[in-house]
Amino acid sequence: MASASSLRQTFLNIRSNKIFELFVISIIILSALLIGAKTYAIDSRIEQIVSILDTAVTLIFLFEVFIRMAAEERLRDFFKSGWNVFDFVIVVVSLLPINESEMALLARLLRIFRVLRLISIIPELRILMNALITAIPRMGYVVLLMFIIFYIYAAIGSFLFEAINPVLWDNVSISMLTLFRVATFEDWTDVMYETMTIYPFSWIYYLSFIFLTAFVFLNMMIGIVLEVLQNEHEKYNQEQGIGEAAEVHWLRNHAEEMEQRLVRMEAMLVALGDKKLKDS
Amino acid sequence: MASASSLRQTFLNIRSNKIFELFVISIIILSALLIGAKTYAIDSRIEQIVSILDTAVTLIFLFEVFIRMAAEERLRDFFKSGWNVFDFVIVVVSLLPINESEMALLARLLRIFRVLRLISIIPELRILMNALITAIPRMGYVVLLMFIIFYIYAAIGSFLFEAINPVLWDNVSISMLTLFRVATFEDWTDVMYETMTIYPFSWIYYLSFIFLTAFVFLNMMIGIVLEVLQNEHEKYNQEQGIGEAAEVHWLRNHAEEMEQRLVRMEAMLVALGDKKLKDS
Amino acid sequence: MASASSLRQTFLNIRSNKIFELFVISIIILSALLIGAKTYAIDSRIEQIVSILDTAVTLIFLFEVFIRMAAEERLRDFFKSGWNVFDFVIVVVSLLPINESEMALLARLLRIFRVLRLISIIPELRILMNALITAIPRMGYVVLLMFIIFYIYAAIGSFLFEAINPVLWDNVSISMLTLFRVATFEDWTDVMYETMTIYPFSWIYYLSFIFLTAFVFLNMMIGIVLEVLQNEHEKYNQEQGIGEAAEVHWLRNHAEEMEQRLVRMEAMLVALGDKKLKDS
Amino acid sequence: MASASSLRQTFLNIRSNKIFELFVISIIILSALLIGAKTYAIDSRIEQIVSILDTAVTLIFLFEVFIRMAAEERLRDFFKSGWNVFDFVIVVVSLLPINESEMALLARLLRIFRVLRLISIIPELRILMNALITAIPRMGYVVLLMFIIFYIYAAIGSFLFEAINPVLWDNVSISMLTLFRVATFEDWTDVMYETMTIYPFSWIYYLSFIFLTAFVFLNMMIGIVLEVLQNEHEKYNQEQGIGEAAEVHWLRNHAEEMEQRLVRMEAMLVALGDKKLKDS
Repeated sequence: MASASSLRQTFLNIRSNKIFELFVISIIILSALLIGAKTYAIDSRIEQIVSILDTAVTLIFLFEVFIRMAAEERLRDFFKSGWNVFDFVIVVVSLLPINESEMALLARLLRIFRVLRLISIIPELRILMNALITAIPRMGYVVLLMFIIFYIYAAIGSFLFEAINPVLWDNVSISMLTLFRVATFEDWTDVMYETMTIYPFSWIYYLSFIFLTAFVFLNMMIGIVLEVLQNEHEKYNQEQGIGEAAEVHWLRNHAEEMEQRLVRMEAMLVALGDKKLKDS
Repeated sequence: MASASSLRQTFLNIRSNKIFELFVISIIILSALLIGAKTYAIDSRIEQIVSILDTAVTLIFLFEVFIRMAAEERLRDFFKSGWNVFDFVIVVVSLLPINESEMALLARLLRIFRVLRLISIIPELRILMNALITAIPRMGYVVLLMFIIFYIYAAIGSFLFEAINPVLWDNVSISMLTLFRVATFEDWTDVMYETMTIYPFSWIYYLSFIFLTAFVFLNMMIGIVLEVLQNEHEKYNQEQGIGEAAEVHWLRNHAEEMEQRLVRMEAMLVALGDKKLKDS
Repeated sequence: MASASSLRQTFLNIRSNKIFELFVISIIILSALLIGAKTYAIDSRIEQIVSILDTAVTLIFLFEVFIRMAAEERLRDFFKSGWNVFDFVIVVVSLLPINESEMALLARLLRIFRVLRLISIIPELRILMNALITAIPRMGYVVLLMFIIFYIYAAIGSFLFEAINPVLWDNVSISMLTLFRVATFEDWTDVMYETMTIYPFSWIYYLSFIFLTAFVFLNMMIGIVLEVLQNEHEKYNQEQGIGEAAEVHWLRNHAEEMEQRLVRMEAMLVALGDKKLKDS
Repeated sequence: MASASSLRQTFLNIRSNKIFELFVISIIILSALLIGAKTYAIDSRIEQIVSILDTAVTLIFLFEVFIRMAAEERLRDFFKSGWNVFDFVIVVVSLLPINESEMALLARLLRIFRVLRLISIIPELRILMNALITAIPRMGYVVLLMFIIFYIYAAIGSFLFEAINPVLWDNVSISMLTLFRVATFEDWTDVMYETMTIYPFSWIYYLSFIFLTAFVFLNMMIGIVLEVLQNEHEKYNQEQGIGEAAEVHWLRNHAEEMEQRLVRMEAMLVALGDKKLKDS
């Protein structure tokens, strides 16, 4: 039992070791470079070295995840962190005995996702990713509104322009892709000039679409900046501003009491002075 | 009378029912999918099902609007909300007996606008739309200025470049469309290189136009962000900031009175002290 | 003298008349439409009407400027406003007896600038234009920096790529135009792929250029937003914030005096109490 | 020794002379124009003049740097400023005896960098450049994240699409260039349509990539604006806001003491009043 605990301590030491972290980062970068190397035409000898290195990386990854698991007091604590689950899945998946000849593509794709481990291991990137993920719901309803605009225009476009160019306007989904192309201004005039030969006023369709999406997009941007600013403002107020405001409020209330007290005291002094005058 | 009132209450209950709302949302989404489905080449049997579902959706929409109308105490209250009028128009229009063979296109287009009901039924989208609508007047004069810039450049362009390429520069309206294309950077160099063969200095025309529109656009953006921020700031001040400022102001005024009172009281005490000394 | 003064008053009344202003705006819009109409192929009869209307507009403009001049106490007051000078020049220029057959183009161009009078006559557009003009110096040094970046890259590009495509890289000025095209992302890969056939690493040239200009542009944007925000903040402080801060400062100083006064008063009271005790 | 010191004083006077500065700026601009002039096809006589002027500019630059060095008390003080090192390197490099016939290109490129001296000599541009340089680390981790996204997508793209178009997807580095092209929306649909002939669902690859990069980019922008705003806010607080907060805090504490003192004083007055009543 004691030896198990001391073993866990050893693993904990390894995990929090800065050199171990740097070692894992180097392994991930090596793994990324190996993935990149495979996209070049390389002679079979180097390919063999790459393959051996690849197996080595897989084993080191497995070993690293095992150390981090062993360092936890209870195994389920390990799975409480989303990033740990993320790392675990990537390691397990790269262990799957996928037949390279049959499903080479899938095997390769899975190996690519190893690069994502860079995000989970560098703390600054983790913070950045968390910030990005919290920004997603904020955009939800605007994305829905955008989707509705795209859908309506795609349906109209598909009805009107299908006969002109089925490649671009065959059905709602293809039309939405075409509209996304128009929204990125990519050769959108070619699309427009083509339909204008049949419907000379179809420029209204394109211009209204561009203005509408640009307008909604701009407002979304402004909205997000404002929301983020407001959150910052409120956080700042809770930390500091409310302190001052509370103190001012305290002063305001107590000053009132003090004033009444002073009024009473002055009246007493006046009474004392009057009595004195009468006495003498 | 009582039964009419209880009936209205029932309708009110139905309208505010969360399940009823979800049901209507599902119907709208189904309706949207049906519209989309029609753009695909589908065999006649599925088309028949789609057609029946379409009629069902129309009837359910009619029923839903009727319930919401009946839930109001007076019918004209229903039409006071712009969103209700919006829903009513969409439902009425989809009931119009348009001959599909003759005006199939119009009938289809009208059906597409049903999707807009998603905006009127989801509260968050309504808030978003209201926010967008309030943003429109703010942009009014900038749009007018932009239009003047486009008009002047289009007139110049039409006079100078009509002979070179009538497709792009035939008259003011076509030239404005060409300039919008230039403003979106869509193959604008093709337009420029063509006119530079006759007028080698016509790049001044294009570059000045691009800089001018970009400059006005940027300033509009900054202006809008600032205006929105200022509004937020003022609203925030009216809620909270002014509270503190008002309290400080109250303190400032009352502190002055208190000080004068203290001056008087000290004078009295000094007088009392002096008398005492004389007495003894 | 009196009649001259009353006449001036009459002109002043005309000038500030809302209906007169609307009339002038309509004339300008009519003038703009006439300019636009000339870009369409129109039969000679309508052209004659357009020509007569054009002369009428010129006369009305002359009359309007005369009224505004006459409404001023002294003529030179009229020329103190930049907008008046602007209007005067446009009117004078449209009176120049330009031979239409010889310098038709110039005559037409001058007439186009009449549309700019819309800006000088609508107060909101004047405010907007003034805001835009004040924004120009703020951008001065960034534009200079951008120019230096463009110039250096253009010189490099011209030396390296002139032999590959003289149309795009013949000399510094043409290269700068090509780089502006690259900066707007307009078919920039075509330019790049062409030079990459000779210099495979020329993508470094394009990517570094795009990143550099985008980076400077972004920072300029952020800088401008911050500067404008800071100005607003300072203005706001001068109006309101400093009021509160000054009041707090006053309170701080006077509270100190009050406290010392209270200390003295308490000492006196204690002395009075002691004496009383001794007396009795 | 005295003469050396007076000589240094003379150099110092020259260096801080406004006319000397303007003279150097003119020389740099002349040098820039000479570089530009060489990109035009010019006849041999003008070329000779340009060559002489070029030598003159080199000598003046050498002389100017020498003056600035001599104006320093110790030579190493000169090299403490990054801008001085920058100027020194440019001058030294332009003195290198590069054989024009052999390494004409390199000689020319080095001469182009002289234009950068404009940045080091105009104080406003130096401030701007310093601001830009301080903005770089702030973007570091976002650039790393972007690079990871590009790398993963490039690896996937290279595996999937290499067979379709090796020009665009041959290996990871070429794929990254293609993805940068997609990110700038430059003919990205051409790239997409090509791969969609084999993989009809490859639009998911492109759209997810565009959304991801746009999303990260947007968040980076917002993040930078917020960070800069926060820095400004804190600086402002340290200067002014904390002053007010500190004063309010002082008031709060002293008001408490004053209140207690008043309570004591009122009690004494009451005691005095009671005694008086008893006495009389």
